[in-house]
Amino acid sequence: MSFVYVLGIGQTVFGRQDKLTVNDLGAAAVLAAIKDAEISPKDFQTAYCGTMYGPSMTVESILIRVGVDRIPMYTVENACASGSSAIHLLYRDISLGIYDAGIALGAESLSSFSRKFGKGLIAFEDDLQGELALTMPSFFAKLCNRLMEKRGATLEDICYPSIKNHRAGMNNPYSQYKKEVTFAEIMASPMIADPITVLQCCPQSDGAAAVVLCSEEYYKKHNKKTHRPPVRIAGSVISCSGAEDASYDPLALRSMIEGARKACEMAGIDPLKDINVVELHDAFSGEELAAYEMLGLCKSGEGVAFARSRAVELGGRCPVNPSGGLQSMGHPLGASGVRVVNDIARQLWGEAGANQVKGAKVGMAQMLGGVLTNIESPVAAGVQILTR
Amino acid sequence: MSFVYVLGIGQTVFGRQDKLTVNDLGAAAVLAAIKDAEISPKDFQTAYCGTMYGPSMTVESILIRVGVDRIPMYTVENACASGSSAIHLLYRDISLGIYDAGIALGAESLSSFSRKFGKGLIAFEDDLQGELALTMPSFFAKLCNRLMEKRGATLEDICYPSIKNHRAGMNNPYSQYKKEVTFAEIMASPMIADPITVLQCCPQSDGAAAVVLCSEEYYKKHNKKTHRPPVRIAGSVISCSGAEDASYDPLALRSMIEGARKACEMAGIDPLKDINVVELHDAFSGEELAAYEMLGLCKSGEGVAFARSRAVELGGRCPVNPSGGLQSMGHPLGASGVRVVNDIARQLWGEAGANQVKGAKVGMAQMLGGVLTNIESPVAAGVQILTR
Repeated sequence: MSFVYVLGIGQTVFGRQDKLTVNDLGAAAVLAAIKDAEISPKDFQTAYCGTMYGPSMTVESILIRVGVDRIPMYTVENACASGSSAIHLLYRDISLGIYDAGIALGAESLSSFSRKFGKGLIAFEDDLQGELALTMPSFFAKLCNRLMEKRGATLEDICYPSIKNHRAGMNNPYSQYKKEVTFAEIMASPMIADPITVLQCCPQSDGAAAVVLCSEEYYKKHNKKTHRPPVRIAGSVISCSGAEDASYDPLALRSMIEGARKACEMAGIDPLKDINVVELHDAFSGEELAAYEMLGLCKSGEGVAFARSRAVELGGRCPVNPSGGLQSMGHPLGASGVRVVNDIARQLWGEAGANQVKGAKVGMAQMLGGVLTNIESPVAAGVQILTR
Repeated sequence: MSFVYVLGIGQTVFGRQDKLTVNDLGAAAVLAAIKDAEISPKDFQTAYCGTMYGPSMTVESILIRVGVDRIPMYTVENACASGSSAIHLLYRDISLGIYDAGIALGAESLSSFSRKFGKGLIAFEDDLQGELALTMPSFFAKLCNRLMEKRGATLEDICYPSIKNHRAGMNNPYSQYKKEVTFAEIMASPMIADPITVLQCCPQSDGAAAVVLCSEEYYKKHNKKTHRPPVRIAGSVISCSGAEDASYDPLALRSMIEGARKACEMAGIDPLKDINVVELHDAFSGEELAAYEMLGLCKSGEGVAFARSRAVELGGRCPVNPSGGLQSMGHPLGASGVRVVNDIARQLWGEAGANQVKGAKVGMAQMLGGVLTNIESPVAAGVQILTR
């Protein structure tokens, strides 16, 4: 087992980029990551790309543009955990000593998707649950209502991650939104699924992110950014659910709880104490509030108190989504799993600018993918632990 | 490195199955493979599914239906080599000793695709080459014309694989077509891209295929079909192109030539002498004729003579597509890469019925995936060598 290091990261600005295709966006992110890594792309021995709605052979089409070819490449899909899956498969290849260096990326254009297929993210073909209105917003509305019923959360608590993350996005050059929101504004915005209003939802976005990973040996030979502390992926898990995850308690998604626990075990850390910064899947504001305890950042049942203590803000015990999260960064589905790993690397390198968590040494990147369709409704959590 | 054995196979009938979704088809194939393997699906430690147009989280949605959950699962895409990629990734996991047993599958519903998106397989968004008419049929028409110009092929030679494969499909219970075609009928059918007529093209199909792979140790413990000779995957390669493959000589696709050469090297076999049976990607009749030499079944430049010698028919030196191939079996894109491996396993087990290649000991399964779009036009060849 080799240690796996982050050698370089790159991404596009997230947001509406409707003049660019998925492949345009992906190539820009890959080029940025190659420049950041300061190596020849000819050194890549394999590549994985996460995308939900990219065209056929997304990964080859993107990498051919920067001269990368004749290596095994795979486009992988796991809903919002597609990018996490791309990183995990590359991490595994390098960790097992199959390859020394490779690139994982994620790319998505929801503008392109909407042009082709309409605003189609709500329901799939033959989607009985969708027809019965169990869509993503209504599932997370259930989660919010349960937070209020079982955890004593108020509407202010539910909206808190949105307010915090919109504020953080003001300082992020890559974020889709650069605008603060107040509780009153959030609650006055159009209702989607009670109590979720528009300003508790992440936007639809276009964008791409890429990360160059390598073995310890390769890192020692080729890392030119010697001012950066070495950052490695110390734990990585793709945790798939059984059917019950989406049907039972949304405050206790087993795939997510187990994914986080296993990743922390791999890294040899205690999430209650050791994690300095987290980037997580806040597609809905209440989702972040529920995630604190599922990821083990606080004790079970104490997520609301944890939030109220401001532990998850800059200066707190464990800042969450200092990038601005999906709420403010935007959420180009397949790209987000790579973007969160990049943002954690940036934090551990001390390069997060105004959103820097001082002295961050251990970070967690998490994504939650799922579909609500018929009886299956699978969920997949991707969790990566980075350390320096 | 562990040897990787084929423990069980399953598939649906290929053809128009427009009452079934991708997940319905996939679940049927998986169930058939589990029954054939005679093991508990709880033994699967990982799963990969190849699909081009399946819904999000295809693999989890399918496997949840047969009680398989809480294992790492990935949906992978590599155009027509998607199924080959799923098998390759599972092969690698078992070969490296990460897992003892798992399932690879491929599933596609082009009926569902057409219902949602129209008859959309010709051109992608922003597909400059498509707008300039370099579609799949026109690319392979170029290949056919080059076969005639550079290899002295006649129209009869170009149509020969279609005639041979339609005849073979008559005996295959899983095939879409059960109808012979004559040279006169082929040439009288509507012209698509000169000289390719409709009856030289594979049909659009719905279907799924699945294969259970396992380690040597697992095989020894759990194989109950002791009448079957042990069949293992002795070589497996996903060979991706550079941009030039689709722009230069279609009779010398480097990704395909190198993929076949590497897979044969891994298996320690000489394709000129040792291969007893081949299942390959005959999306167009002329494509099969050009493949003989690229796969190394005959010497470079001698594919037409090889075909005329009837070496590729039952009773010949190396029967090709005794299943009926894509021409007659049908081509549910993501499923075909798994289906060809299953058909080779069936041959090596001696269970291919009227299409059995007597005494077959070494077989090759090949798929060629590609997209023709803008300047990228990547190609990926999947090649698996099976031995008993």
